[in-house]
Amino acid sequence: MVLRTPDQYKAGLKDGRRVVYRGKTVKDVVEHPELASAVDHSALCYAIHDRRPDLAVTEIGGDPTSYFWVPPQTADDLHRRGRLIEEVSRLGGGTIVLKEVGSDALFALLRATSGRGLANAREFVDRVRREDLALCVGQTDVKGDRSKGPSEQADPDLYLRIVAEDADSITVRGAKTHTSFSANADEIVVLPTRAMGPGDEPYAVSFALPIDTPGLTLYVSPYMAGERTAFEHPLSSRHKLLESLTVFDDVRVPKDRVFVNGDPAEAGPLALAFVDYHRFTAINYKLPLLDQVIGAAVLVAEANGIAKAGHVKAKLTELITWAETVRGLAELSALRATEGENGVWRPDPLLVNMAKYHFAHGFSEATQHLIDLAGGLLITGPGADDWAVPEVREVLEKYYAGAVSGAERLRIANFISDLTARDYGGYQRVLATHAEGSFEAEKLQILRSFDTTKAVQYVSDLAGLSR
Amino acid sequence: MVLRTPDQYKAGLKDGRRVVYRGKTVKDVVEHPELASAVDHSALCYAIHDRRPDLAVTEIGGDPTSYFWVPPQTADDLHRRGRLIEEVSRLGGGTIVLKEVGSDALFALLRATSGRGLANAREFVDRVRREDLALCVGQTDVKGDRSKGPSEQADPDLYLRIVAEDADSITVRGAKTHTSFSANADEIVVLPTRAMGPGDEPYAVSFALPIDTPGLTLYVSPYMAGERTAFEHPLSSRHKLLESLTVFDDVRVPKDRVFVNGDPAEAGPLALAFVDYHRFTAINYKLPLLDQVIGAAVLVAEANGIAKAGHVKAKLTELITWAETVRGLAELSALRATEGENGVWRPDPLLVNMAKYHFAHGFSEATQHLIDLAGGLLITGPGADDWAVPEVREVLEKYYAGAVSGAERLRIANFISDLTARDYGGYQRVLATHAEGSFEAEKLQILRSFDTTKAVQYVSDLAGLSR
Amino acid sequence: MVLRTPDQYKAGLKDGRRVVYRGKTVKDVVEHPELASAVDHSALCYAIHDRRPDLAVTEIGGDPTSYFWVPPQTADDLHRRGRLIEEVSRLGGGTIVLKEVGSDALFALLRATSGRGLANAREFVDRVRREDLALCVGQTDVKGDRSKGPSEQADPDLYLRIVAEDADSITVRGAKTHTSFSANADEIVVLPTRAMGPGDEPYAVSFALPIDTPGLTLYVSPYMAGERTAFEHPLSSRHKLLESLTVFDDVRVPKDRVFVNGDPAEAGPLALAFVDYHRFTAINYKLPLLDQVIGAAVLVAEANGIAKAGHVKAKLTELITWAETVRGLAELSALRATEGENGVWRPDPLLVNMAKYHFAHGFSEATQHLIDLAGGLLITGPGADDWAVPEVREVLEKYYAGAVSGAERLRIANFISDLTARDYGGYQRVLATHAEGSFEAEKLQILRSFDTTKAVQYVSDLAGLSR
Amino acid sequence: MVLRTPDQYKAGLKDGRRVVYRGKTVKDVVEHPELASAVDHSALCYAIHDRRPDLAVTEIGGDPTSYFWVPPQTADDLHRRGRLIEEVSRLGGGTIVLKEVGSDALFALLRATSGRGLANAREFVDRVRREDLALCVGQTDVKGDRSKGPSEQADPDLYLRIVAEDADSITVRGAKTHTSFSANADEIVVLPTRAMGPGDEPYAVSFALPIDTPGLTLYVSPYMAGERTAFEHPLSSRHKLLESLTVFDDVRVPKDRVFVNGDPAEAGPLALAFVDYHRFTAINYKLPLLDQVIGAAVLVAEANGIAKAGHVKAKLTELITWAETVRGLAELSALRATEGENGVWRPDPLLVNMAKYHFAHGFSEATQHLIDLAGGLLITGPGADDWAVPEVREVLEKYYAGAVSGAERLRIANFISDLTARDYGGYQRVLATHAEGSFEAEKLQILRSFDTTKAVQYVSDLAGLSR
Repeated sequence: MVLRTPDQYKAGLKDGRRVVYRGKTVKDVVEHPELASAVDHSALCYAIHDRRPDLAVTEIGGDPTSYFWVPPQTADDLHRRGRLIEEVSRLGGGTIVLKEVGSDALFALLRATSGRGLANAREFVDRVRREDLALCVGQTDVKGDRSKGPSEQADPDLYLRIVAEDADSITVRGAKTHTSFSANADEIVVLPTRAMGPGDEPYAVSFALPIDTPGLTLYVSPYMAGERTAFEHPLSSRHKLLESLTVFDDVRVPKDRVFVNGDPAEAGPLALAFVDYHRFTAINYKLPLLDQVIGAAVLVAEANGIAKAGHVKAKLTELITWAETVRGLAELSALRATEGENGVWRPDPLLVNMAKYHFAHGFSEATQHLIDLAGGLLITGPGADDWAVPEVREVLEKYYAGAVSGAERLRIANFISDLTARDYGGYQRVLATHAEGSFEAEKLQILRSFDTTKAVQYVSDLAGLSR
Repeated sequence: MVLRTPDQYKAGLKDGRRVVYRGKTVKDVVEHPELASAVDHSALCYAIHDRRPDLAVTEIGGDPTSYFWVPPQTADDLHRRGRLIEEVSRLGGGTIVLKEVGSDALFALLRATSGRGLANAREFVDRVRREDLALCVGQTDVKGDRSKGPSEQADPDLYLRIVAEDADSITVRGAKTHTSFSANADEIVVLPTRAMGPGDEPYAVSFALPIDTPGLTLYVSPYMAGERTAFEHPLSSRHKLLESLTVFDDVRVPKDRVFVNGDPAEAGPLALAFVDYHRFTAINYKLPLLDQVIGAAVLVAEANGIAKAGHVKAKLTELITWAETVRGLAELSALRATEGENGVWRPDPLLVNMAKYHFAHGFSEATQHLIDLAGGLLITGPGADDWAVPEVREVLEKYYAGAVSGAERLRIANFISDLTARDYGGYQRVLATHAEGSFEAEKLQILRSFDTTKAVQYVSDLAGLSR
Repeated sequence: MVLRTPDQYKAGLKDGRRVVYRGKTVKDVVEHPELASAVDHSALCYAIHDRRPDLAVTEIGGDPTSYFWVPPQTADDLHRRGRLIEEVSRLGGGTIVLKEVGSDALFALLRATSGRGLANAREFVDRVRREDLALCVGQTDVKGDRSKGPSEQADPDLYLRIVAEDADSITVRGAKTHTSFSANADEIVVLPTRAMGPGDEPYAVSFALPIDTPGLTLYVSPYMAGERTAFEHPLSSRHKLLESLTVFDDVRVPKDRVFVNGDPAEAGPLALAFVDYHRFTAINYKLPLLDQVIGAAVLVAEANGIAKAGHVKAKLTELITWAETVRGLAELSALRATEGENGVWRPDPLLVNMAKYHFAHGFSEATQHLIDLAGGLLITGPGADDWAVPEVREVLEKYYAGAVSGAERLRIANFISDLTARDYGGYQRVLATHAEGSFEAEKLQILRSFDTTKAVQYVSDLAGLSR
Repeated sequence: MVLRTPDQYKAGLKDGRRVVYRGKTVKDVVEHPELASAVDHSALCYAIHDRRPDLAVTEIGGDPTSYFWVPPQTADDLHRRGRLIEEVSRLGGGTIVLKEVGSDALFALLRATSGRGLANAREFVDRVRREDLALCVGQTDVKGDRSKGPSEQADPDLYLRIVAEDADSITVRGAKTHTSFSANADEIVVLPTRAMGPGDEPYAVSFALPIDTPGLTLYVSPYMAGERTAFEHPLSSRHKLLESLTVFDDVRVPKDRVFVNGDPAEAGPLALAFVDYHRFTAINYKLPLLDQVIGAAVLVAEANGIAKAGHVKAKLTELITWAETVRGLAELSALRATEGENGVWRPDPLLVNMAKYHFAHGFSEATQHLIDLAGGLLITGPGADDWAVPEVREVLEKYYAGAVSGAERLRIANFISDLTARDYGGYQRVLATHAEGSFEAEKLQILRSFDTTKAVQYVSDLAGLSR
C-alpha cells in the first residue's frame, strides 16, 4: 500500500479510538451522522490522487506516492506543493483538508531534530509515506495563564509533559487543544508549542502515536453541530473540520517514536520550523477562499443590480488587490525558497509571514464588504423547509427576484450567509485570526526575518552619519 | 387599558394571523417552541414599566402611559427617550426590543404627512397610546433589480403598490422585507422606502393595519432556528428577533387607516423623517452592545492572563474610543435637537448619522479585536452536552483553567463566541451594516446635513479669493 | 494696566532677553525681519479684546480683564473658554496664538500645587491677570536617552534640575525643548515633564521667571525661515510660532516664584493637570484648522470640476465626519466638566483625549485627501515672481483656468500647498502628531479615564459569571 | 557617440531653449545657481555607466549602449531594467533620475503606434540610442474643467491640439503640465493624456521635438527654490527635479517626428501602454525611498532610546511589511511579464498596479510613523547657521544628545525632517499620490487587469447556480 483510496482511508479509522462528542462516546466516526461529513471532507486528500495526479502523485522507488510526503529539495518542489495544497483546498471549499498539516510537521522534524530523534523522524516519514497515513498534529498546549511559562502554572499539566521515563518509553500527561483532524486521522504527531529554557525540560517533548493508543482521549467540539441543508449551508453542509481537546492521561510512548525527549534547546527551533511550513500551507490553502470572496462579490452585485455603482467597483477593486497580494506573495515565497537544515528547503519566511499578515488583516474587511454588497437577506431569508413547499416557494421566487431569478438570488445569498454570517462564517473568521499563528506571531516573524542592515547603511550614508 | 403588562401583550398576539415558519403555518406564536423566545424578548418592552418607571412611564390626561408613545417636544424629551431606549435594550441583551421602531414611524407620520393623512395619523397615535399597542414597521420593499425604480421593474409588484381604490378603501399588493417583530406585533405600519417621482404614484403609499388582516401573510426567516442552550448561547438563547417577508396579497385598507395615498411628493420626506428617528433609536439601543464588547474584552484578557500586554491595552483603548465616541455623539444629538414640522422635535441629523457611521464602521474591527483577544477556543470549545456529563466536565475544568477557573473561562469564551462567531454574531454584524441604513445611506445624510458655507468662506478669506 | 493692546504687548518684549537665531544674537524680536510675523501673530491675543469682547473680556473687581486668565469654576466657563480659544485661533489661521498655553499652566498650578507653592501660584496668577502678561511654558525636557529616567542619564543636565538652593532662591540648570512663544513672551512658566519617584528630587521643580532673567538663553529654530510671499504662502506668510531650545545655565530663581521645589510626589499630578487643560486647548484651537480642510476640499473640487464624482463626495463625507466628531467631542468635554482640586474645574478627560485622538489620528489622512483632490499643481505651480510679470501671468491665467479662473485656481492650490505640502504643512503634521501629547499619551489617558466596572458587571451578569 | 558622459550630457543642454524661472529667462540651466543641482541629479543617469556597467550598459552592434534604451524582449529584460532603475534611483536619493520616463514613452510608442507613426517611432528610438539622448515626456494636459472632455472646454487650447497641417508638418498649440526634466532634457516626447473619441481628432497627437524648437517655452516651478544646506536638507540639497508648464505656442512639428496624427483610436492605447511602463518604473525607482523609510525608522528609534518599545516594534513591522510588499509585487510583475504588441514585452499590469497601489496608499501612513518615532525635533531643531558657530554648537551637542551623540541625533532628525516635514517631504507625498497615476487610476487598472471568470465559476459551482 502506497497510495490509498478514500475508502481505504475511511476503513483505517475504524479502530478503538476514544472520541467523545456532545458528552457521548462515538463508536465509529465514519458512520456518525454529524462527524461523517468531516471524514468525507478529509477523504478529498485521497481523492486528489485520481483528480490531479500531475500535482498529487510522484514516484519513489518505482511506487506511486502521495506528493504530500515529499520533503522539498528545491524551490520548484515548494512551488508544486503550493499548487497541490491550493487544488485540494479548492475541492474542499477553501478549507484545509488533511495531509497538509501532517506533512508540515514531518518537514519540521526532519529539519530541527538531531541524533536519535532525527533517526526516528526519518523512519517515521518513511513509514507514513509507505502507508499513506493520515496524520494530525497536536501542537497548541492549553496554556492556562498565558502570563506564565509551562513550569510556572498552578497545575503543572497545563502544558503537555513527561511524567516518567524507562528504558523503552516515556510517559506523558497533559492536553493539546485546537487539534484539527484528530478524530479522523490515523496518527497524531505531537510538537512543542514554543521556545523553552532551563527548568522546562519535562515540557520539551515531541513524538508520534496512533490515535487509538491507550490513555489518549479526543473531546471533539460540537461547534457547527446539528443538521445542515445544502440550501441553507452550501459550504458547511459538505466541508467541515473536527477540532478536539486532546487529552493524554499518562500515555506511554515507545522511544522509537520520540523525536524530542527533554531537551529544551530543541523545542523553539522545532516549533519555528513547523511554523515555516504551516504558514506556507495556510497561504496556499486560503487561495480558493479568496476566490470565493471575489466570485461571490461579483455574483451578488450582479444579482442585486448594483454592479455598476462606484462604491461597488471600489470594493471589488479592494477585494482583488487583497486576494492577489496574498497570492503573489505566496508564489514568491516559493520562488525565493532557500535550503534549510539537513537539506530540507524552506519557503522564504519574510514573504510567507507577509502573505499571512495580509490575509489575516484583510479577512474581516473583506467579509465586511461581502456583507455590505449582499444586503440584509443574509439573515432574513427563507430556509430549506420553506423552499420545499411549492406554494411557499412560489411566493419566494416572485418576491426575491432581482436582476436574476429569485432562485439564483437566494442561492447566492445563502452562499454568502454561510461564508460570512452563520457559524461557518464565524469559524472562518476565527481561523483567519488564530489558525497557523496570531497577528502578533506574524508580526514578530516579519521583524525577525528582515535584515535592516542595508537600509540603515543607506540612510547613514545619505545623512552623513559616521557609521 | 393604557399600560399593558407582558402577559396582556402576549395574550393580544393570539389571533388569526397567518405566520409561515419553516414551511409550516404557525398556530400560536406565543407557544411555538422556536418563536417563544422572541416574544419573551419583545415583552421586555412591557416589563420596563415596572423596572424603570422613571424613564418608561409618563402621565397623560391622568393615565399612566408608555413614554415610547410621546412625540418629542423638547431636546430633553429626546434625551429621555434615548435613555429609555438604552435601558430597555440593556434588558434585551443589546438587541432592539419592540416599541422603538413603531414609535419612530409614528413621529415620522406626525411630521411628514398632511391633510387627511395627518388627521388619520394623529388618531392612530392616540389609539396606539391608549391601547399600548405593539407595532412593527414595514418599510423596505423587496426592490428587485436595484438599478431600476419602482415602476421600471419587470414585475410591478416588487415595490408595494396600490392596485385598486374605492370610496372607503385602497387595495395594495406587494411585499415588504426585513420586517422585524411582524409576527409578534399587534399592527403593522407601512411606510414608503424612498423618494419617488412622477409615474410612481401607485407606490407612494403608507397605512397601518392589524396583523391578522386578510391577505397579509408573514414568512418568518428560520435564521437562528434550532435549540439553543444557555451554556453555548448565553445571549441568543434569550434574545432574538423575528424577521419576515411580509406579503400583501390584494389587501384592503380602510381609508381612515391610510396616511399617504398616491402622492409621490410625500414619499421621500416621510422616508427621511422615519430615518431621523430610526437612526437615533439605533445609536441608543446599540449602547449596551458597546458595553458588552468592552466588558467582554476586559474579562477575556484577564481570564487568559494577557491583560497587561501592550497590544492588549492598545486594543482595549481602541474599543473604548469607539464605544464612547458613539455614546458621546448620540448624547449630543439629543442635546442639539431642533423643532421639526408640526412641532415634533428631531435629533440633530448630522450627529445622529455620524454616531451611526462610527458604530457601523467600527463594529467589524471591534469584534475582530474581541476574537483576537479570546483565542481559538471560540470555535473549538465544548458544548452543553459535554458540560452535563460529570466526568467530562471534570476534564474540561482541569484543562480550560486560565487565570480564572475553567468554568468561568468557558463561560466568557461562550459569551464572546455567541456575540462574534456563531450565527447570532453574524446577525449582529449584518445588522451593524444594514439595519437602520447602510454605510452609503449614512454617508449621504452626513453630506446633506452639513452646511459647508462657513468653512468655504473662511478659506476664501484666507486664500484671497474673490467670493 | 489690565487689558493690554497689541502695541503694549510688543513694547513689553523690548528688554535684555538673549535670543539666538540662525547663529546670531537677536537685538529686538519685534523688529527682526524673520521673527516679526510671529510676534504679530501672537499679538492677535490682544487684538481679540476689541474684536470679540463678548468672549475675550470679563470684569474682575471692576476692571476689564482678559478672559484667558479666569480659572474655570463651572462647565459654562470651560465652554466659553473653548469658544474664545476657537475664535482667536480663527484669527490666527488655525494656529495656536499665545495665551492659551500659559493659562493652561496657571490652572494646573492652582489645582496641583500645595502649601507655599500654591500660595506663590495664586499670587502669580493675580499678577499675570493684572498685568495681562504673555506667558510661555517650558515643559518638555530634552530627555536624552528615553529609555532612562532623569537621574539615570549619562549627563545629569538632560532633565532640568536644581543644582543649588539657599534661603531665598534655588538655582537650576538644564534645558527645555519645543518651547513655543518663548522669544515673544514676557515670562516663562516651567513645569515638570513627567511623574517622578525617589531619587528624582532635584528634577521635581516648577517656577516662573521673566524671559530676560540672567542665564536664560533661547535658541530659536530656523524652521520656516526665509522670505515668504502671500501668493505662495497665504497662511505661513502671516501665521507662525517661534520654538526654542531654552537653556538654563545656572539660573537663580527667587523662592517666591517657585511652585514645586524638590517634591517628586507633586511632579506627576502637576504634569497631568497641565495636560487636562492643554489638550482641551488643543481640541479647540484646532477647530478652525478643521474648517480649513473642509473649505479647501470643497473649493478645490469645484475649481477642478470634480465636485460631483462619487469618490470626491466620499472623501468630503469622511472629512466632515472627522472634523465634526472632533468638534462634537470637544463641546461635550466642556458640558461634562467636573470640579477639580481647589475648586478649579476640569473638562472631562475621557472626551478631551478622545477628541485629541480623533484629530491626531485623522490629520494625516485628511491632508492626504486634500492632496488627492488638489492634484500635482501643489508642487509644480508658478511662484510670486512669475505672477508679477504680466506676460508670464497672462500665460498662467490661460493655462491654469479650471472650472474657475486661473487666478482663483492658483490661489486655492497655493493655499492647499501651504497647508499640506510645504514646510508649514509639515509643521502642522508634526504638531498633530506630537504637540499637546503623542498618540501613545492620548491612548494611555483614555484607558485611565474610562471606568470599565459597569461594562464588566453587565457582561458578567449576561454570561452567568460569579462576580 | 553612443554612451555619453555626465559632462557631455550637460554640454548638450547649452542651446537656445526658452526656460522661464521665477519670472526671468534662464540663460544656461547648467550654470544657474538654483537649477544646477537638478542637472547634476539627472547626470547620475550617465554616471551609472561607470558605476554599474553590469546593469546600465549593453552592447548593440558592437557599440556599448545604455540599457535604458533597450526595448524589453523577455521577462529577464524587464527584471534587469527594474534593477537598473532601482540602482540609479539609489544614487539619486530615491528620486527618479532622468532616462526612465523617456524610455517608458519609447516602449509605448513601439507597441501602440502603427504605419508611418510606428516607422517614425522606430527611427526615433534608433537615434535616441545612438546619441544617448536625454528625453522628457509631456503627457498631462492642463485639462481645464475636468468634468469636460478636450473638445468641450471653454478654451479649446486646454488640451494640446493640432491647429494646422501642411504636407511636411503639423502645427500644435496648447500646454502640458507637470513635465519633469523638460528644462534639462535634450528632447521632449509628447503623448496624449487619455482615450479619445470622435470629435477629438485634433487632440490625438504624439510627436517628439528638441527642447529648443521655436515656440516652445518652459515655465519651471519655483517649488523648493532657495538655498539649501546639507545640514538642514541632506536629501533635497542634492536631489531635485525641475517641473514645468510646457507651452506650445503654434509650434511646427516635421512629419517625420509625428507618431500619432489625428487618429483618436490610437490615443487611448498609447496612453495606456505608457502607463504600463511608467508605473513599472515607479515601483522600481521608489524602492530606495522605501529603504530610506525603514533605515531612518531604525536609526531614529535607536537614537531616541525607544527601539525596544512595543509600539515602536509594531510600527517598524508595518513599515517592513509595506516596503517589502511593494518590492515583492514589483519583482513578480517582471517575472510574470508577457509579450505585448510588436514583440515588446510588458510587465504584468495587475501586479504593477497593485504594487503602485500599496506604495501610494501606504506612503502617508509610513511617513506618519516616521514622524511619530522622530519627535518634535523635526520642526524645532537648529539650522546650519547655528551649527556653524562653535559656542552655539557646543550647547546643541550637549542638549541634543540622545542614545547617540547630539551631532548624530540632529543629522538623523534633519534627514527625517527633509524626507517628511519640509517642502521636499511634501513633494514626495504629492508624488506618491499623483505621479505615474492617481489612486483612482490604479484602482481602475486593477479592476481592468483582473479576470473574474474563474472565481465566478468556482462560486457558481459551489452555490449550485445554473451557469
